[in-house]
Amino acid sequence: MIDLHSIKSPADIKPLDVDELTRLSAELRAILLKKLASRGGHVGPNLGVVEATVALHYVFNAPADKIVFDVSHQSYVHKMLTGRIDAFLDPDRYGDVTGYTCPEESDYDLFEVGHTSTSIALATGLAEARDLTGGKENVVAFIGDASLGGGEALEALNYVPTLKSNFIVVLNDNQMSIAENHGSLFEHLEELRRTNGQSDNNLFKALGYDYIYVREGNDLKSLIRAFEAAKDRDHAVLVHLNTMKGEGYPMAEANKERFHYTGPFDLHTGVATATDDSEDYTDIFARHMLGRMQADRKIVTITAGTPGAIGFPPARRALAGRNFIDAGICEQAATAYVAGLAKGGCRPVFAVMATFIQRAYDQLSHDISINNLPGVIVDFAGSVWGIPDVTHLGFFDIAMVSNIPNIVFLAPATAEEYLASIDWAIDNLEHPVFVRTPGGEIRHSDKPVNTDFFTYDVVREGSGVAIIGAGAFLSIAEAAADLMRERGINATVINPRILSSLDTRCLDALKSYGTVITLEDGIIDGGFGQKVAAYLGDSPVKVHVLGLKKEFIDRYDADKVLEDNGLTPRQIADLIG
Amino acid sequence: MIDLHSIKSPADIKPLDVDELTRLSAELRAILLKKLASRGGHVGPNLGVVEATVALHYVFNAPADKIVFDVSHQSYVHKMLTGRIDAFLDPDRYGDVTGYTCPEESDYDLFEVGHTSTSIALATGLAEARDLTGGKENVVAFIGDASLGGGEALEALNYVPTLKSNFIVVLNDNQMSIAENHGSLFEHLEELRRTNGQSDNNLFKALGYDYIYVREGNDLKSLIRAFEAAKDRDHAVLVHLNTMKGEGYPMAEANKERFHYTGPFDLHTGVATATDDSEDYTDIFARHMLGRMQADRKIVTITAGTPGAIGFPPARRALAGRNFIDAGICEQAATAYVAGLAKGGCRPVFAVMATFIQRAYDQLSHDISINNLPGVIVDFAGSVWGIPDVTHLGFFDIAMVSNIPNIVFLAPATAEEYLASIDWAIDNLEHPVFVRTPGGEIRHSDKPVNTDFFTYDVVREGSGVAIIGAGAFLSIAEAAADLMRERGINATVINPRILSSLDTRCLDALKSYGTVITLEDGIIDGGFGQKVAAYLGDSPVKVHVLGLKKEFIDRYDADKVLEDNGLTPRQIADLIG
Repeated sequence: MIDLHSIKSPADIKPLDVDELTRLSAELRAILLKKLASRGGHVGPNLGVVEATVALHYVFNAPADKIVFDVSHQSYVHKMLTGRIDAFLDPDRYGDVTGYTCPEESDYDLFEVGHTSTSIALATGLAEARDLTGGKENVVAFIGDASLGGGEALEALNYVPTLKSNFIVVLNDNQMSIAENHGSLFEHLEELRRTNGQSDNNLFKALGYDYIYVREGNDLKSLIRAFEAAKDRDHAVLVHLNTMKGEGYPMAEANKERFHYTGPFDLHTGVATATDDSEDYTDIFARHMLGRMQADRKIVTITAGTPGAIGFPPARRALAGRNFIDAGICEQAATAYVAGLAKGGCRPVFAVMATFIQRAYDQLSHDISINNLPGVIVDFAGSVWGIPDVTHLGFFDIAMVSNIPNIVFLAPATAEEYLASIDWAIDNLEHPVFVRTPGGEIRHSDKPVNTDFFTYDVVREGSGVAIIGAGAFLSIAEAAADLMRERGINATVINPRILSSLDTRCLDALKSYGTVITLEDGIIDGGFGQKVAAYLGDSPVKVHVLGLKKEFIDRYDADKVLEDNGLTPRQIADLIG
Repeated sequence: MIDLHSIKSPADIKPLDVDELTRLSAELRAILLKKLASRGGHVGPNLGVVEATVALHYVFNAPADKIVFDVSHQSYVHKMLTGRIDAFLDPDRYGDVTGYTCPEESDYDLFEVGHTSTSIALATGLAEARDLTGGKENVVAFIGDASLGGGEALEALNYVPTLKSNFIVVLNDNQMSIAENHGSLFEHLEELRRTNGQSDNNLFKALGYDYIYVREGNDLKSLIRAFEAAKDRDHAVLVHLNTMKGEGYPMAEANKERFHYTGPFDLHTGVATATDDSEDYTDIFARHMLGRMQADRKIVTITAGTPGAIGFPPARRALAGRNFIDAGICEQAATAYVAGLAKGGCRPVFAVMATFIQRAYDQLSHDISINNLPGVIVDFAGSVWGIPDVTHLGFFDIAMVSNIPNIVFLAPATAEEYLASIDWAIDNLEHPVFVRTPGGEIRHSDKPVNTDFFTYDVVREGSGVAIIGAGAFLSIAEAAADLMRERGINATVINPRILSSLDTRCLDALKSYGTVITLEDGIIDGGFGQKVAAYLGDSPVKVHVLGLKKEFIDRYDADKVLEDNGLTPRQIADLIG
């Protein structure tokens, strides 16, 4: 049997026969599971495609042939086969690879991606480039069923057959999104599976694809036969794989949603090894929303395919019933549903990860805000303490959303202010409102919340120096003010709450100050502090605008990033003489 | 026969029989054509749906039944039938209605929309609201074939059947986008038309829709029968209308692209009445790109369904051959194609209207910029002198795009600087570059272009006061400086060119100035001037940040908007004592 350490590239598996490849797959699955149990990661997606990945690299000749993984959270086995197996065999090197394809790691990885529904479109560009430059390689987009429902994927799916040249879509149909799928496409895939791919009605054939169905999507012989049949065709072909999410690990097969992504767990019991019982904003949000929905059937919570990430595991979804809408991985449509629901007299709240609301800039602007419909968006992980993967950064949301007219952008600082913001957003009929869930540790306040959200809250009255700390950075502002006090400076501390407009009365009062410092948990460019600086530009007060640098960073340490950006309390205090 | 003036609501046409409705349609078409010839507008889309709109209002009971028009550029006949016919009969009142549905005009208009692919998703929200609140009305989305290819439409098309309640998609298949369609969906629609809707393979049935085909989509009897069959169903149904774009006006039937949208024209000859022979940036751009593509087959121009608006009418497309790619109305996928083409070694240039690039924020950020791929985006009508319809405003692009990391955002001021920017963008391999086509009158310069685009250009050396005028507003800066000179002030005038980063050396030199004024042809919030203000916040120099207010405005006069925002040369000169 092949020594796993010896796998340096796909060439090393090409001499193997099917039985050997099958045994290899079992070994790869075992070491994958061991790493996943130790470090956490995308369990179900990777276990489901062990055989498909082995077969891909057996049949195609990467990197000459170009394979683009969608989301790329299922690329662990691909990494094992393309020179990075030590990062899976050796616990000391587990951290050597990221959880997504990464061109800096390997030429076998074509794009840094973490968002769904991207592979077909990215691969289309590669195929166009190939055809223009006279290349002959295969171009393969490897995409999951749930990802196929996203607009970017559907746009490209429609376009590909018009290339009239080689293009292979491998549809990894594991019958699941992160949670269950939503959309009639998935009922159609069920029909195709039920008929062993023989149904007269076939969406992909309708769109001009050759169609190959693989009933045993975890069987190497079937996979190799299908990929060989697809290889080198001179037009579009879709290979539909019926795979099992979590294949080979009974806990993951039985509980697909829990094992889509998980932290470290006990391999024998499947139980998480590090449990965190501390308070959590998703739970605070979801409990509150459930209560409001149960009291008022016009209130609706919407997710775009990430119910767990907004505090709605299956049991809570069941309690919410029809008032909980999962739009599938379709942020554009979900945002338009908000517009339609608000127009129809409901009170919709779309809860979404900050990195994914990026998909819906136009819908926020054109569908909701031009119509000034009172829909509510609540975003999560919009913070330096959000998700530290470069493809999932959450600190661009202030710059992206707060500059759209009509949207009231609120950045509450405490749990109490957060819930008051959400309630105010739901109960108002005047504006679309975007509520940013605070990042970092949860802060509480027993002070009554000032619900005039168009004004700033002066939380500490001082003189000469003012620190305006937005959202979770209010605590940094207070810590900096404490340090200043030790130095004899009594700084005013302000919680602005609203980042889409200025409280000019409050700012006017600062014009007699010597220094104003703004802090925001987002990039400086396009953010809140620059608006303050511009407003005060005509007055003699010195303004320091602090926040995060406009850059993409990966797998970062938040404390280090704060320090690099001059955002520690001491660095801030040092700004004052 | 019914007196057209007497049509106050759809109730007024319900007593008519099919022959009367047919004659009514002919009369509506005639007055529509007369207004279109006089004022310009969307000729083909409206002529094609005269009968369909009459039939819709005959069968359904708006506004109780809810009809959402996609793009809504085809809603003129709808406006005629819903209380606004005087705006079509009386030339003095032609300006009373906008070119899109407009809730401020009428309760029959549900949303202010102008972007494609929105209707199904917006209507889905209405249907959800209906189902939650116990309503029984019909919900109808009226969408064209080309619009159906956009991601937002496809996402919702997939979702609708899962509602398991009344929903009617009317697919107005006129076999055209603005230009020809691109995508395999359109070949499938052709198959459905060819088989009179009887093909075994049926995309819509595959997705769970009931399907009704109307071969004679401009025949009232057929239309009424189909809509009556669709009405009040308790699940999703798609009514596929085979219509003729430009129906009833031979010039428009024969030349569909030209008559999609046109300015005023002679009704008898079809010839435009007001021709404008002045220079035009779309032509400058397209001529330049054609030359570059012919010299280097790796250079590619991409459009997302608007080839004419970027200077590529059919003849020029033919010359460009395969190097011109029309992605269909799919800005997301088109932006991803840029990423793939750049990765594949080509030099892609995606030319797009400023209002439509809003669809692709995430693709600009995630697909292109995280990967730092050297793709080029050129946007048009990103200016106060762009399209003055509220749904097509172009002055949000600086705020949206320039705050995305890695993108070099250039705002050239002259035709020469514009072409140099595009060449620099194409020839560089380091960065994604976004080039903003200047708005307003074309300006030339015989000075050699400084192609170090990371630095500002000092176009007039003065002292004490500096005016930094970005893009087309450089000319306002110069006019203001001229006025100041009359008052004895010798202002420095700067052309910044780059809006995504600061030339800190240049700005440092301004710290000893008394006043710095920034001017930008975009909203102030999130823009370039606020970055300058923040950078200079720590120095005593006074900074005035001028630009457009963050607001949605409709059918505006650019001169008036400039004056309202303090952007006339005199207002700017008056800022200095």
